[in-house]
Amino acid sequence: MHASFAATLSSLHGADRLCVGIDPHSSTLDAWGVLDSATGIEHFGRAVLDACLAEGVSVVKPQVALFERHGVAGMSALSALIGSARESGVLVISDVKRGDIGTSLAGYADAWLGEGSDFESDAMTAVAYQGVGSLEPAFSLAARNNKGVFVLGATSNAEGWMVQSARTTDGTSVAGHVVAEMAERSTRAPHSEPGWLGVVVGATVNREHLGLDEESFEGLSLLVPGFGAQGVGLGELREKFGRLAPSVIPTVSRSVAGDDRAGLQSRLRAHQEQVNALW
Amino acid sequence: MHASFAATLSSLHGADRLCVGIDPHSSTLDAWGVLDSATGIEHFGRAVLDACLAEGVSVVKPQVALFERHGVAGMSALSALIGSARESGVLVISDVKRGDIGTSLAGYADAWLGEGSDFESDAMTAVAYQGVGSLEPAFSLAARNNKGVFVLGATSNAEGWMVQSARTTDGTSVAGHVVAEMAERSTRAPHSEPGWLGVVVGATVNREHLGLDEESFEGLSLLVPGFGAQGVGLGELREKFGRLAPSVIPTVSRSVAGDDRAGLQSRLRAHQEQVNALW
Repeated sequence: MHASFAATLSSLHGADRLCVGIDPHSSTLDAWGVLDSATGIEHFGRAVLDACLAEGVSVVKPQVALFERHGVAGMSALSALIGSARESGVLVISDVKRGDIGTSLAGYADAWLGEGSDFESDAMTAVAYQGVGSLEPAFSLAARNNKGVFVLGATSNAEGWMVQSARTTDGTSVAGHVVAEMAERSTRAPHSEPGWLGVVVGATVNREHLGLDEESFEGLSLLVPGFGAQGVGLGELREKFGRLAPSVIPTVSRSVAGDDRAGLQSRLRAHQEQVNALW
Repeated sequence: MHASFAATLSSLHGADRLCVGIDPHSSTLDAWGVLDSATGIEHFGRAVLDACLAEGVSVVKPQVALFERHGVAGMSALSALIGSARESGVLVISDVKRGDIGTSLAGYADAWLGEGSDFESDAMTAVAYQGVGSLEPAFSLAARNNKGVFVLGATSNAEGWMVQSARTTDGTSVAGHVVAEMAERSTRAPHSEPGWLGVVVGATVNREHLGLDEESFEGLSLLVPGFGAQGVGLGELREKFGRLAPSVIPTVSRSVAGDDRAGLQSRLRAHQEQVNALW
């Protein structure tokens, strides 16, 4: 029996909230001199996880697309990686960005949040193009199994703006609507610890333009990718997020994986020091 | 070497465009008396595919969530099912609803549209919460490999309305924006046959309220789930879609799977006759 995602998350502060992305991009594998194969990504994942364990990292986020790319063997490598991380007490947020409705969405929830499933993680990411309400089966399962769910809110990529800034009938932006729906669900949940529900928010997003202020995120965790590689340093975390900073789970991926295995641990340590310096 | 998705699709008319969903919901498996396991879904998938082959069905759509739910073995069963269908000359549209950006989205495209990958399908479904432009790697790969991509446009579930009806800065709805972006890409593509790009549109959606008229869908295929189970009969296809009807790929799932294996083939035949009666 693993501890509750929310309880563990609330016990983490400062650099302990740093989340390390496990992203076996083919360019990274090339740079590392590792084969772009299921065996290669298994090796890469193991190396990143080992560095995380050595440096006391508490949260990792595998990018599932890069495992799925290698088919059944890739998914099997992912299953082993998730299992090892969780056995070592590291929280796993599987970045799957799943979305659907009804029993199909429930199927995805079972896959990523179900007890004993091959891909059982501590939390998953999800997408609400079909409405936040369509993700209800994932929220219920997460509540039952003490897991977490992070729904894409406002992402940093330019192409996302037209959709995420569109105005709903009540005048809020789509991103604002998603955040509001998530915040509402987070407060009504039968949980003592906040933060089991969250949103994905890009580090470089202009939240004000989307009608999002600090109050909008009340009770939510913020999973924030894009530190390091997307031009925002971890050192800017407090400046960028103000009062919300303690709710942020800052995520670094490429800047940790870098171009070789040799420097992995020292790059990771440098990132931790950057976060530690903030508090 | 498989034929091009668009070329094959354009050669299909009337009942030959009927797409059979392969959806191993646990309630369906229960009703069939089949175990809710990787072996059970493999058995179910095989049975539906056999009925499709016996009745000359040309297009199937596995609901990937219900395979992923059974972990690595479930994905392995899916891989075998997709392979069998394609070897028999049946087009496979994998209903995965993937969405992400950059190399992650490219990873999903490789997984579902890549030549020789375990899950290689003829087409995949995708989600554009991060913008239609974020799906570019899937469109490029589809163009290169003669595959298809269907992006969620307007879905029938009530929870999706707030997001899909929101107004973008140029005054169109989010659904209208997605459809317009897809239509534009479909015309500029280096393809002689139209229809390799498409959108998913629910049978019961009020398209007019979303600012969508017949012209909006020019050059696109329309993948339309929800016939049978969602209250719109196949017999209403022409009435609901008018001039667009020939571009529709009507999809039936639960009403074919039904409550037993015994009646599978005759239910399937009845659906085909309904579509045939339209033309």
